[in-house]
Amino acid sequence: MTRIVTVGAAQMGPVQRDHSRTDAVTRMLHLMREAASRRCDLVVFPELALTTFFPRWFVEDIRQADHWYEVQMPSPETAPLFDESARLGIGFCLGFAELTPDGHRFNTQVLVDKTGREIARYRKVHIPGHENHEPDRPFQHAERHYFQPSMDGFGVWNAFGGRVGMMICNDRRWPESYRVMGLQGVEMILCGYNTPIHYVPDPSQDILQGFHNALVMQSGAYQNGTWVVGVAKGGVEEGVDSLAQSMIVAPSGQIVAQALTTDDELITASCDLDWCGRYTGTLFDFDRYRRPEMYGIIASQRGVTHPDGE
Amino acid sequence: MTRIVTVGAAQMGPVQRDHSRTDAVTRMLHLMREAASRRCDLVVFPELALTTFFPRWFVEDIRQADHWYEVQMPSPETAPLFDESARLGIGFCLGFAELTPDGHRFNTQVLVDKTGREIARYRKVHIPGHENHEPDRPFQHAERHYFQPSMDGFGVWNAFGGRVGMMICNDRRWPESYRVMGLQGVEMILCGYNTPIHYVPDPSQDILQGFHNALVMQSGAYQNGTWVVGVAKGGVEEGVDSLAQSMIVAPSGQIVAQALTTDDELITASCDLDWCGRYTGTLFDFDRYRRPEMYGIIASQRGVTHPDGE
Repeated sequence: MTRIVTVGAAQMGPVQRDHSRTDAVTRMLHLMREAASRRCDLVVFPELALTTFFPRWFVEDIRQADHWYEVQMPSPETAPLFDESARLGIGFCLGFAELTPDGHRFNTQVLVDKTGREIARYRKVHIPGHENHEPDRPFQHAERHYFQPSMDGFGVWNAFGGRVGMMICNDRRWPESYRVMGLQGVEMILCGYNTPIHYVPDPSQDILQGFHNALVMQSGAYQNGTWVVGVAKGGVEEGVDSLAQSMIVAPSGQIVAQALTTDDELITASCDLDWCGRYTGTLFDFDRYRRPEMYGIIASQRGVTHPDGE
Repeated sequence: MTRIVTVGAAQMGPVQRDHSRTDAVTRMLHLMREAASRRCDLVVFPELALTTFFPRWFVEDIRQADHWYEVQMPSPETAPLFDESARLGIGFCLGFAELTPDGHRFNTQVLVDKTGREIARYRKVHIPGHENHEPDRPFQHAERHYFQPSMDGFGVWNAFGGRVGMMICNDRRWPESYRVMGLQGVEMILCGYNTPIHYVPDPSQDILQGFHNALVMQSGAYQNGTWVVGVAKGGVEEGVDSLAQSMIVAPSGQIVAQALTTDDELITASCDLDWCGRYTGTLFDFDRYRRPEMYGIIASQRGVTHPDGE
């Protein structure tokens, strides 16, 4: 029995400040129907897909930002996604800002099966940007003000006939994200992102954004023998230009599908999960070749120390 | 004060079985003099540079292979490298098979300063290939028969005005190698390699060897904000075609120099070690952004387990 998962990466163009959730959901329903017509088992939407990327603005009193968060999922506005998922028999993955009943704020993705039922929830581990208002910036990236980091870490779930993991945006730059999932046998990682092209702390990186985006997902895929589905919210949103270039990467590290536009665009690939074993069963047979006794400081040490190797 | 290290990657073509150590050293002296004439502070030679890549053959009694190992460094045959280093005022890094006085066998690199004095020794952590004779292979890759893995792990040394680390060949495919050095503030990683283009366990990878070689060094450089110097012994050695494509990679992940031939060839780059801070001080400020409490299984678990994320 072959294990083919046909996946759609549903890139979205900008969601402006005055767009409603219903506006965004309407666009997602259109992409979901297109994915179903192209025989996708699963369609993946970007990070914070329901709203504009609000961490670009700062508010002193975070309660003034409550309207950007979801307090229930599904909600009246998002229920049509779950209903259409069940009607079409297609799963989906959706990123949104989550405000829990006990007041915690997370950058979250849910994974929904083909019956419209949530089967997994992932909260972002690596929160980039800054905590405080930095008035000299052309725009803020105050994710560390708006979101607390996950205390659950990276999980892998039995779904769609394989082992599926999730990560969000900045997580994809850290090899640890892929590896923690790789050690749980992941075969497909779903990753939404919003990536401003202008990186304020070091503008020399701006021209490299597309290169870095591909580099980290391709190496993470190869080094863990997993499919990676990277899905952007791209284009010029509230004056900030964000990287598009959504892509589906094979366990070989090869890009098998890539978005060409910076707008709503569906790309798809039929992913053979058994291809993972070509890497995890040979060069990256972890049990045979890894040396965890040499990796201690990766898990025990946060920042840099300067011992002398002698 | 700028911290520029001009480094030469001294790629070598094949060293055949009947070539003597003196033959190899003569070629290296030529490359070293060229590097000195191009104002290099340091020249890097490949893995197992003094001999052919002998793990491609199997011998039941490993003592029959003793002649491939160095029992002293420098030895009468290798002393000219150390003498010329001191005379020219250029450091070097050299890979060789090491047989210790107490009978241990390692795949080793030494780092030698500009006075011809050894300042660091690294032994390969990740030993690829197989332990036993596999007669159906067109050639063996029995590194696990010939070498025991390092019990010291990855070090970083104060050298050449910066923080210098080493790794060997297969180490470069593991993100842990770079990260363990990154957490010790590495600014330049020196890596020799011998990489047969034909990967016997999965020939679908053959056509991707060059891509994978670049992918892992570029991502390791970027994700740790370090220079990486990758140096091949390439070309057709005893009938086995090995990857050349030596390269010098910047902390941005960009390739700044790359070998074009599969033979002896020197490539150089003037590496600004302060460029590392553009990454380690911003996006990859480890102390600010890493989440080691979420990375436990990387250091505690060797192979794959299949927990369910729920």
